[in-house]
Amino acid sequence: MTKINLAIVGATGNVGRTMLRVLEEREFPINELKLIASERSAGKAMYFAGKTIHVDTLKPDSFENSDIALFSAGSSVSRSAAPLAVGSGCFVVDNSNAWRMEQNVPLIVPEVNPLSLPTGKEPRIIANPNCSTIQMAVALWPIHQKAGLKRIVVSTYQAVSGTGKKALEELHFQSGRVLNVPEKELDHKVYPHQIAFNCLPHIDEFLEDGYTKEEMKMVNETRKIFNTPLLPISATCVRVPVFNGHAESINIETNIEITPEDARKVLNDAPGVKVVDDPENNQYPMQITANGIDEVLVGRIRKDNSVKNGLNIWVVADNLRKGAATNTVQIAQLLLKKSFK
Amino acid sequence: MTKINLAIVGATGNVGRTMLRVLEEREFPINELKLIASERSAGKAMYFAGKTIHVDTLKPDSFENSDIALFSAGSSVSRSAAPLAVGSGCFVVDNSNAWRMEQNVPLIVPEVNPLSLPTGKEPRIIANPNCSTIQMAVALWPIHQKAGLKRIVVSTYQAVSGTGKKALEELHFQSGRVLNVPEKELDHKVYPHQIAFNCLPHIDEFLEDGYTKEEMKMVNETRKIFNTPLLPISATCVRVPVFNGHAESINIETNIEITPEDARKVLNDAPGVKVVDDPENNQYPMQITANGIDEVLVGRIRKDNSVKNGLNIWVVADNLRKGAATNTVQIAQLLLKKSFK
Repeated sequence: MTKINLAIVGATGNVGRTMLRVLEEREFPINELKLIASERSAGKAMYFAGKTIHVDTLKPDSFENSDIALFSAGSSVSRSAAPLAVGSGCFVVDNSNAWRMEQNVPLIVPEVNPLSLPTGKEPRIIANPNCSTIQMAVALWPIHQKAGLKRIVVSTYQAVSGTGKKALEELHFQSGRVLNVPEKELDHKVYPHQIAFNCLPHIDEFLEDGYTKEEMKMVNETRKIFNTPLLPISATCVRVPVFNGHAESINIETNIEITPEDARKVLNDAPGVKVVDDPENNQYPMQITANGIDEVLVGRIRKDNSVKNGLNIWVVADNLRKGAATNTVQIAQLLLKKSFK
Repeated sequence: MTKINLAIVGATGNVGRTMLRVLEEREFPINELKLIASERSAGKAMYFAGKTIHVDTLKPDSFENSDIALFSAGSSVSRSAAPLAVGSGCFVVDNSNAWRMEQNVPLIVPEVNPLSLPTGKEPRIIANPNCSTIQMAVALWPIHQKAGLKRIVVSTYQAVSGTGKKALEELHFQSGRVLNVPEKELDHKVYPHQIAFNCLPHIDEFLEDGYTKEEMKMVNETRKIFNTPLLPISATCVRVPVFNGHAESINIETNIEITPEDARKVLNDAPGVKVVDDPENNQYPMQITANGIDEVLVGRIRKDNSVKNGLNIWVVADNLRKGAATNTVQIAQLLLKKSFK
C-alpha cells in the first residue's frame, strides 16, 4: 500500500490531537508525519504510534514533501496556507469554514456523498463540513434516500469542545466557581456570557437577518452535501454546558411516508449510524455515551402527527471525532483510494 | 380588601418555598397562613412576612378554615387531598398534573385565558399548567392573536429545579465529581443517567408512541389553554445541566404573515413578556438572566424561510416562578377578584 507523507496543521488543538488518535486507530499508512502549529506550540513534543514528533511552525516549504495536509487551525490559516500546500502538489483536507461553499471544493461526508470526491489529482482542496452539519447529514441521508426530505427543522445542543481548549477550561473553571461561590459574578473570556449551568443561543457570529453563521452552515452545507440546493431547512444553534458531544432535536417532513419502524430499519442498515432507541429501558442517545466513538447515535424516533409525513429524531455524536477529526481522516482514506493508487 | 385564609400544600419544596416568596412580594392579602408538607418536614420552622410558621402535616381537618389552598406536592397528593379541601369549601389551585385535563377544571395562564376562570364559587379546583407549557403559552398567545397559529414545533432545554431539591443536589454533586475525578463512574438517583455535563432527552415517563408525558403535556395543555383543540404541535423535551430556568426553541407557522418586527411589537405590548432581542450586542434570553424574575423572555425572533409564514423564537423563563409559583399566585389573585368580593 502507498504510504503517505502527511502534514497536520493545527496539530496541538482539540481537533488536531483527536486526528492523531484517529489516524493511529485506523492505521493510516503514514510514511512521514509532520506536525504544524502556531509559534506558541513550536518545539512541543507530541506522540504518535510510539514515536516522538516535535511540532514545527508553518513555513513556506512546509508542504514540499507532503502528499496530504489535514488542516484544523481556523479559517484565516486555511485561507492563506492551503494554497501554499496546493502549490507544493499536496492535497488539503480542510476542517475550517474557509472553502466549504466554494463551487469547486467538494464538501464531503464519506457516508453520504463519497462520489462528490473525484478520482485523480484535482481538485486539491477538499472541505470537511461543520460538526453540527456532519452528524445531521449522516442521520438524515438514509431517510432522504428512502422517503425524500421535504423540510428540516433542527435545534442543537452543542458542547464547548468545538470552540477549543480555552472553552473547555472556561466551562471547567466557571462550573467550579458556581459550585463553590454561587453568588460571585463570573468571568468569561471565550463566550460572551457565562456558559456554566446556562445555555447560549449563540454560536459563531450573528448575521443581519438574526441567524448565526453556525445556523446558516447547517442550512447551506447540508444542501450542498445532499445536492438539494433548495431543501427548506431551519436551524437554531445553542451552546449547552457540556464538555464534548453535540445533540440535535430534528423534525422532518418527507415526500412519502416513512414510519418510525421503517426509519429505524434504514438507519440500522446505514453506515456510520447506531440506532439507540429503547425508551422503555431508558436507552437513547446522550453526549456521555457518544463521547469517544465514531458512530452517529440516533434515537427518540417517533411519528410527528402535527404535519403530513412528519418524523422526530434525536441525534448525538462526538463533535471532535465524527464532527471533525474522524470525518477528516475518512476523507483522507477516500483520497488514498481515489488518488494514490 | 378581603383577607384570605391560605393553605400551601408542599410548602417546603422548591415550588412551595418560591410561592412564599412570591406571595410576600405581591403582598397577597393573607389572614391566616397554613403550611403543610410531608411527615419528614413536620414541625419545621418557615418564615413568612416576618413571622415564623411551623409546618404541619396533612390532616382530615387541614382545610376547615381555609379559603384557598395552593397545592404543589405531586399528583397523588393532589388527587387525594384536593377533594378534601373542596369538601371543606376551599378553592384549590393545583400545580400538579392531576386535574389539568379534566373537562370541568379550568387550566389557567392569567395572561392568556383569565376568562376561562368563571366568576363565583364554582368550579373549586383550578389547575396550573406545566412549566414548559406556561412560558410557551405566554410567548405565543400574542402572536396567535395577531396572526393565528397554524403549527408549533418546540424543543426544550429544561433545568433540573423542576424535578425537586434532590435533583438540584444531584446536579451539584455530580458536577463536582466530574470536575475533580473525571474518570469516576457517577452515581445517579434522581435521573436514569448522569445529568452533569450531559443532556437527557427524557422528561417524565415514556408513552407507547415514543413521546414522553412531558411532551404530551405541552401539546394537550397548550391546546386547552388556547382553546384550539386541533392545533398541530410537536414537542421534544430535553433536560439540560442547568440549575434553574427553562429555555425553548420554538418554530411556528401562522395563518397570516407576521414579520419579526411585528412579532417584536406585539410581544413588547404583551403582559408578562419581555423582549430581549439585540443580537448585535449579544443580548438574547438566557437561563441565568431569567432566574429570579417573573417575565417570560423572548428573543432570537427571526423569519423562517423554510416554510410559508414561518417564525423562529427563543423563549426562557424561571420555571419555579412563572412556570409554577408565580402563575399559581396569579391564579389566586384572579380568584380573589372573581370569587371573594
